[in-house]
Amino acid sequence: MKHKTMKFEEDRLELIDQRKLPEEVQYFEATNYEEVKFAISDMVVRGAPAIGATGAYGVYLAAREYSDLDKEEFISQVKQAGKELAEARPTAVNLTWAIRKTNGVLENNREKSVGELVESIRVAAGEIAEEDVEINKRMARNGNEVVPEGATILTHCNTGALATVGYGTALGVIREAHKSGKEIEVYADETRPRLQGARLTGFELIEEGIPGTLIVDSAAATLIRDGVIDVILVGADRVAANGDTANKIGTYNLSALADRHDVPFYVVAPTSTIDYEIESGDEIEIEERAEEEVKIIRGSRIAPEGLTAYNPAFDISPADNITGIITEKGIASPPSKESLKEFQATEK
Amino acid sequence: MKHKTMKFEEDRLELIDQRKLPEEVQYFEATNYEEVKFAISDMVVRGAPAIGATGAYGVYLAAREYSDLDKEEFISQVKQAGKELAEARPTAVNLTWAIRKTNGVLENNREKSVGELVESIRVAAGEIAEEDVEINKRMARNGNEVVPEGATILTHCNTGALATVGYGTALGVIREAHKSGKEIEVYADETRPRLQGARLTGFELIEEGIPGTLIVDSAAATLIRDGVIDVILVGADRVAANGDTANKIGTYNLSALADRHDVPFYVVAPTSTIDYEIESGDEIEIEERAEEEVKIIRGSRIAPEGLTAYNPAFDISPADNITGIITEKGIASPPSKESLKEFQATEK
Repeated sequence: MKHKTMKFEEDRLELIDQRKLPEEVQYFEATNYEEVKFAISDMVVRGAPAIGATGAYGVYLAAREYSDLDKEEFISQVKQAGKELAEARPTAVNLTWAIRKTNGVLENNREKSVGELVESIRVAAGEIAEEDVEINKRMARNGNEVVPEGATILTHCNTGALATVGYGTALGVIREAHKSGKEIEVYADETRPRLQGARLTGFELIEEGIPGTLIVDSAAATLIRDGVIDVILVGADRVAANGDTANKIGTYNLSALADRHDVPFYVVAPTSTIDYEIESGDEIEIEERAEEEVKIIRGSRIAPEGLTAYNPAFDISPADNITGIITEKGIASPPSKESLKEFQATEK
Repeated sequence: MKHKTMKFEEDRLELIDQRKLPEEVQYFEATNYEEVKFAISDMVVRGAPAIGATGAYGVYLAAREYSDLDKEEFISQVKQAGKELAEARPTAVNLTWAIRKTNGVLENNREKSVGELVESIRVAAGEIAEEDVEINKRMARNGNEVVPEGATILTHCNTGALATVGYGTALGVIREAHKSGKEIEVYADETRPRLQGARLTGFELIEEGIPGTLIVDSAAATLIRDGVIDVILVGADRVAANGDTANKIGTYNLSALADRHDVPFYVVAPTSTIDYEIESGDEIEIEERAEEEVKIIRGSRIAPEGLTAYNPAFDISPADNITGIITEKGIASPPSKESLKEFQATEK
């Protein structure tokens, strides 16, 4: 993609402002961790892998800010900042995972000076970001194996370069299938309430020249029933040890329809999205966001003031509805405690 | 409801402009059939029963306009206007049904003068409108029998007073259940792309003081799975002889989820919505509307210019997914050729 989701240079994090796409391409600058926290919670940046890397840069900015403190106080403050960053969006595990990595740097290098620790965190954040692109490309190659020649693919939300540091998860597979000349077509769910499918996936499909058609979320069911869709590819915000998957609201709906009509349904996610500490989807906290996201669309109120809205950001697709989970280490198909455990064993 | 969907006085049809609700309560005036046709196709007025009555008034306005012609030419022109009105929205059968009624007036009263025919059509249009309210109230009483005390009801689109001449179909049942003191609660799908759920059902729920919560369409699936929803009530634009039902896009999705999770799923529609001339849903023409309805929300473009959108206005729920069809003559449960035929036999 021509545009970059994030750039980090001279202690300044620049994030493409995803609230304004596709109409305006603007960058949001963060030079301290409070600004990073805002960028995550207000969804300047979104997508589980992207907020993981962003969170790590946030920890680095906090470390730089606290570098005048003595070591114990420094470590305590930086960890506190990490905790706040992790809480900015509770469902995506990649954020927690990234903060655990930066906390590891603090805990495993007690002999280092504060200055050296700051530098080590900077290096760790950079590695998380760089690795993300590499991991995406490996996932994309693995995922391309399940995409038939000439396939019509349905996807939900945005799981592309914008949802990651680059390339993408589910949309990374689509990108790879397109590049490999398979003449695919894509149906993109608009993905209410934040319209990431219309705005962001639409933006990426146009940029890449991939034939794409936008639909309202509720139109997907008929396409699935009528045999128009050959394969469904979605991302994930957290995968439980048994394969139950939290992803953008609407994903459960697709997984149930896919199961009903025997359409292959794949989750594409790096192994950092797998939370081995939770047994099943029942334990995943579902972030509930502001009512206004539903009641106001781009400044225009679509519902009467007095009406209540319920706005869960995610839902849980049970492992039973999922054909396979595509990771950078291979495909767990069907997903299960056993098939996913293999990826944990080889984690460094 | 305080506001009226339509008023017809002194040869002027006033329609509450449903494109502008809930922010503005404005009336659209039509004094000729071309304006009525525009009001139907641009969805100033919508809802199968409401456009049926509107269409009949449109035929009357055409008749008045052509009353200077000689009788044969008059009949031919008025029928042509009726044909154009019926084509303004092809899926809802009530419009065709209303035009058939006004055509019947022309055909069965050949001995009358042009002036008398104009008057007969005026009377027929008035009767269609008046009967609609009566029929809705009977449907509402029948439907109330399937609503448990304290039920949480899910509904889609707008099927209320605004979708009819008054009272409503599915929302009429909800209105009746609320009035009868059952302490119900309602989840309303926002119903993209035109947001009739958020804008119009929201408006009616607030006006009636019925506890309501707005959700994005794709959030319904999880509520259905989690047992939050006791019963689903929707309207219909056309019911085939076997019970297959065309209704607002997204209805098939709900019917499939309801079937999967054993939640009662009822269609509420007057018998004028049943098209006995077609065997099954396969024969129902699905209106495809402009891409811009998906790509632009209230003047704000939500997708890149170059992206294609697919915008079917309706989908088909198979009779197998439907617990019952609630009409003014009783409930066809399960719906089938046989159970629906009983309503035809008693039609006058």
